[in-house]
Amino acid sequence: MIQLINGQPATNLSLADRGLAYGDGVFETIALQGQQLQLWQAHWQRLQHGLHRLGIEVDTSELQQQLRQDIQQALQGWSQVQGVLKIIVTRGIGGRGYAPPATPQLTRIVQVSLWPDGRASLPEQGVCLHLCRHVWGHNPALAGIKHLNRLDQVLARQEWSAADRHEGLMLNQAGHVQSGVMSNIFVEHQGRLYTPLNDGAGIDGIMAAQVMAIGQAKGIQVHQQAISMDFLQHSDGVFLTNSLNGIWPVVGIADQAYKITAMTRELQSLLALHVSRFTGVW
Amino acid sequence: MIQLINGQPATNLSLADRGLAYGDGVFETIALQGQQLQLWQAHWQRLQHGLHRLGIEVDTSELQQQLRQDIQQALQGWSQVQGVLKIIVTRGIGGRGYAPPATPQLTRIVQVSLWPDGRASLPEQGVCLHLCRHVWGHNPALAGIKHLNRLDQVLARQEWSAADRHEGLMLNQAGHVQSGVMSNIFVEHQGRLYTPLNDGAGIDGIMAAQVMAIGQAKGIQVHQQAISMDFLQHSDGVFLTNSLNGIWPVVGIADQAYKITAMTRELQSLLALHVSRFTGVW
Repeated sequence: MIQLINGQPATNLSLADRGLAYGDGVFETIALQGQQLQLWQAHWQRLQHGLHRLGIEVDTSELQQQLRQDIQQALQGWSQVQGVLKIIVTRGIGGRGYAPPATPQLTRIVQVSLWPDGRASLPEQGVCLHLCRHVWGHNPALAGIKHLNRLDQVLARQEWSAADRHEGLMLNQAGHVQSGVMSNIFVEHQGRLYTPLNDGAGIDGIMAAQVMAIGQAKGIQVHQQAISMDFLQHSDGVFLTNSLNGIWPVVGIADQAYKITAMTRELQSLLALHVSRFTGVW
Repeated sequence: MIQLINGQPATNLSLADRGLAYGDGVFETIALQGQQLQLWQAHWQRLQHGLHRLGIEVDTSELQQQLRQDIQQALQGWSQVQGVLKIIVTRGIGGRGYAPPATPQLTRIVQVSLWPDGRASLPEQGVCLHLCRHVWGHNPALAGIKHLNRLDQVLARQEWSAADRHEGLMLNQAGHVQSGVMSNIFVEHQGRLYTPLNDGAGIDGIMAAQVMAIGQAKGIQVHQQAISMDFLQHSDGVFLTNSLNGIWPVVGIADQAYKITAMTRELQSLLALHVSRFTGVW
């Protein structure tokens, strides 16, 4: 794994960093095709938006420039066909106490790592989901962004270890369907697509946004709204999206089987094309 | 500042630690009187409980032994009259992804630092509170424990910088009074004490528990229940508790003035006595 902190090769972070003390920062996980970043513009926009939502004021053109250099440096000599780029930006070093420094010096962490094993067949064969007992907290001020406070997902993810459960389905405090543990969820119903709003919990997924745009461009109505378990159980098909995995069709949730629909297959094809057009050097 | 990671002097933590990636851990902030820890037994119990709630299984007698050694080592040569001991325990190093390692190797961080300046007169003169616009998220599974996902408090704390606002009052999603940013809140009403339940948000404060016990021992009825802003505004007195500050009487919330009551003063005296009896070497 290649790791940089503020442009310098490093494996360790200061104990005084607010990323550790409070989870005071945001992150992005980006698919690499060789040296090229998939959907980097969308990831960069979400990163900026997350910092803004946390009240971390930043010279965005300076940060963009710095991250560009970091990534260039991290990818020097990287020759894998596929890989994963993780970017973390924290509010940096802080004194004791919650009050942020008046002029924070952000910490940039860039990590390049190998593509995860054992997932190659899942877009074709589909995935089975564990139904998580742990439900998302309700927090409108923090919902949607990819911040470093991720205990909801940790608690949900540790509920299962069986290798034939590939993801978990998470509900929100209202008992509605919210997301996968590491993915967004889409439900097909009478030719329309439904996906939850991430206004009280969940994360606005980069791949989810692409799928919504592609679906709408094909004339599919896409509704962002509350989804009940009953609606899910009576749907025609379900799939998950994630920046690394693209679209995973769902073939089972707990004991219920689901079919992979023609719409899911078509969206997979369209998404592959679309994503390849938005893959490049930052 | 003195800092140890797993018993070794260190200033930096591995980038692979789940404390940074997800806030996957808990912490305690303990007042030091010379080399002695205030209320260490209560802090140790909350730490264990927090780890258990996060599903971090641990040999508690081994961890206790290790922390004891860490603290002993960190305090060698420490000669200040007062100080602050911070303990962080994370789920340790993890691979990519939310799934915890099957057998996590916990990370112990022990930090000893100087007593915060500028607060000495506040128990006597009282404090003024900013009324925070940011409200606590609602998360029953995480409420009460002192985990590392603290963005709620960061967002609330950054709302004010005026030095004459010493703390912030935070509400919960129901619009009820929940806590200070770094303290618990008590409201006096017709000779009784009221403090919010921390079952959907907030932290079960160590000092708050002492105050409840002391109050009850004095025959004061203490009710843990929802507290409306209206109830607060029509109360006889308000105070805050925190492990470092003991009791801070509240003399103002936004534009409303509050009087320091005889009960608050009596609890301050009793608490000082009580705490001194539970201060010692771990």
